Amino acid sequence: ESPAAETARHHSIAVLPGDGIGPEVVAEAVKVLDAVTDPAGVTLEKTTYPLGAAHWLDTGEVLNEDTMERLRQHDAILFGAVGAAPNDRRVPSGLLERDLLLKLRFGLDHYVNLRPATHYPGTTSPLADPGTIDFVVVREGTEGPYAGNGGTLRTGTEHEIATEVSVNTAHGVRRLVRYAFELAQSRARRKLTLVHKHNVLVNAGRLYQRTVDEVAEQFPDVTVDYMHIDAATIFLTTDPARFDVIVTDNLFGDILTDQAGAITGGIGLAPSGNINADRTAPSMFEPVHGSAPDIAGTGTAQPTAAILAGAMMLEHLGHPELADRVNRAVRADLEENGTATRGTTRVGDDVVARLRA
Amino acid sequence: ESPAAETARHHSIAVLPGDGIGPEVVAEAVKVLDAVTDPAGVTLEKTTYPLGAAHWLDTGEVLNEDTMERLRQHDAILFGAVGAAPNDRRVPSGLLERDLLLKLRFGLDHYVNLRPATHYPGTTSPLADPGTIDFVVVREGTEGPYAGNGGTLRTGTEHEIATEVSVNTAHGVRRLVRYAFELAQSRARRKLTLVHKHNVLVNAGRLYQRTVDEVAEQFPDVTVDYMHIDAATIFLTTDPARFDVIVTDNLFGDILTDQAGAITGGIGLAPSGNINADRTAPSMFEPVHGSAPDIAGTGTAQPTAAILAGAMMLEHLGHPELADRVNRAVRADLEENGTATRGTTRVGDDVVARLRA
Ligand SMILES: CC(C)[C@H](C(=O)O)[C@@H](O)C(=O)O
Ligand SMILES: CC(C)[C@H](C(=O)O)[C@@H](O)C(=O)O
Repeated sequence: ESPAAETARHHSIAVLPGDGIGPEVVAEAVKVLDAVTDPAGVTLEKTTYPLGAAHWLDTGEVLNEDTMERLRQHDAILFGAVGAAPNDRRVPSGLLERDLLLKLRFGLDHYVNLRPATHYPGTTSPLADPGTIDFVVVREGTEGPYAGNGGTLRTGTEHEIATEVSVNTAHGVRRLVRYAFELAQSRARRKLTLVHKHNVLVNAGRLYQRTVDEVAEQFPDVTVDYMHIDAATIFLTTDPARFDVIVTDNLFGDILTDQAGAITGGIGLAPSGNINADRTAPSMFEPVHGSAPDIAGTGTAQPTAAILAGAMMLEHLGHPELADRVNRAVRADLEENGTATRGTTRVGDDVVARLRA
Repeated sequence: ESPAAETARHHSIAVLPGDGIGPEVVAEAVKVLDAVTDPAGVTLEKTTYPLGAAHWLDTGEVLNEDTMERLRQHDAILFGAVGAAPNDRRVPSGLLERDLLLKLRFGLDHYVNLRPATHYPGTTSPLADPGTIDFVVVREGTEGPYAGNGGTLRTGTEHEIATEVSVNTAHGVRRLVRYAFELAQSRARRKLTLVHKHNVLVNAGRLYQRTVDEVAEQFPDVTVDYMHIDAATIFLTTDPARFDVIVTDNLFGDILTDQAGAITGGIGLAPSGNINADRTAPSMFEPVHGSAPDIAGTGTAQPTAAILAGAMMLEHLGHPELADRVNRAVRADLEENGTATRGTTRVGDDVVARLRA
């Protein structure tokens, strides 16, 4: 057996619970992770970092270099959600997004933003006839319109010009597309759909299309097609079952994955991995949903997305069989109990009971 | 009565049927337009221009300067759809989009792309519980990511860099936002939602938000809110009834309006106006759907979107009462007959019969 195939059994995890319901759902994810790893002799050593809106209000710091350095030393990061109440004007709009979330993605080179979309039995899709929804969006995470390029001229005047520059590199697109093909190859349907808008965004679009065409040659058993982003929102409404793996840019992926969360029965079920597939820095796993300050403290938050994010983390750490156990327990739990409010800790307890059974 | 209030009764219309089902649906729109204008003493003098994929294959020209000049002389343009079959490799991808559709929008300064989304009685939404869908998207049409700025470096190599520059001007955003507020003001619910992604696209986002805040002061009875584009795709799935007027940028508008078409029961019903609200050049009205080469010639294309686009044109030409008659006839027709295939000409005939009744 090669050294690469040896799986570590001890992992150092940074836990970033965040604000609002973040700590509540992360607590359930941790509970489930412990329940599945302990009997397998796998240990997760957790260090909690208090980052988010409350932390910023307390300290005036979002994410300093020292914390960033410490985060880098972990094997993975489990993240809850951050953000103050929308009417809390003390936290400047966009501050946590840029200086925490995007800083982590860019700083830790999370170039694959992996977002599975699954319609679980026992849950209700808002679509009248959803069919079998089971696809994964492979969203670029470190360039495109999120690059933070652009600026303003004559700022604040009636002659202002504001630009946003989407920066796309062959390197960035290639590593993303390769990841997507490998994933598609490993799945039953082996289908990959590039989503872009290459009839209008010709420069970035051609780079994506050319890269997909090139990489496709190494994956002859993966079926490839292309769809414009606008058409993709139609098919996510009328025929989401057609999708298997979607590869797309940072902004289109942002949009499609929220829509995917909606059609599968709510983003309370949607997990997300911010993955550095070269493993030069820790990857980060989180629910797609936000901090939901309106229901924080009521004990009603749905922890399923956070638990599923924990399973993605186990898979990334080299424990696909443990990830699988969690996924199956969650699926069975949803099938039996649906998503009606059972209470946050109750859901965690039920999943744990199933793992022990 | 001021001269501006006098409505012309004679209009010169450029008709661009295009390819595929374009000519078929435009024929029905023209039939309906004639049926409603004739008895009212309004005349539409039509000149047909053969533009599109077939025209390009015949002549090697997409849209020459001479034709552009002639189009400028008309009072309005009625457009069908353009595009060859997807597997017809003779027409370069993106050619018609850029050199015809976008050239018209930019050349004729169609800065408002107006797209109503209505769920008609008698039609079926793919949403299980759509509620009352009746909103309008006011999409920017002449800047943003569609500006055609950007380029490539080290093109075609493994070190390629491809950029897309979204260009947004205070002038461009202001005239759009004013139009949207005026529209919101005229509607029953008087609600305006700005959709953007100002937490990430901060430069363009701030310009939009500031402009909305400024213009809002002149419209105190319009309720204003803000939503990120990703959240908007969720609410279009879970609660589309909450929207009244959405104002948004060119790319977000492209995406939202296709999703809006899907949730209201198919883009076979969605009309669109490319409007130069300063009237320095003719506005253009079209169905949102494409040329659907697969069903062209079968006589089954749904002409409703084209007919509704004709009604938008009548409104723009100063005949709101005639537009209203067409809209009511279409609504009654859908309520009675639904969208099941009746045949393209049959739908036109039925709407005409209703107008005459
Ligand atoms: C909060 C925001 C910066 C983020 C994004 O746009 O990527 C979020 O919407 C997401 O999808 O994770
Ligand atoms: C054909 C294409 C250029 C166009 C757009 O992106 O605007 C279309 O999708 C539309 O919405 O009218």
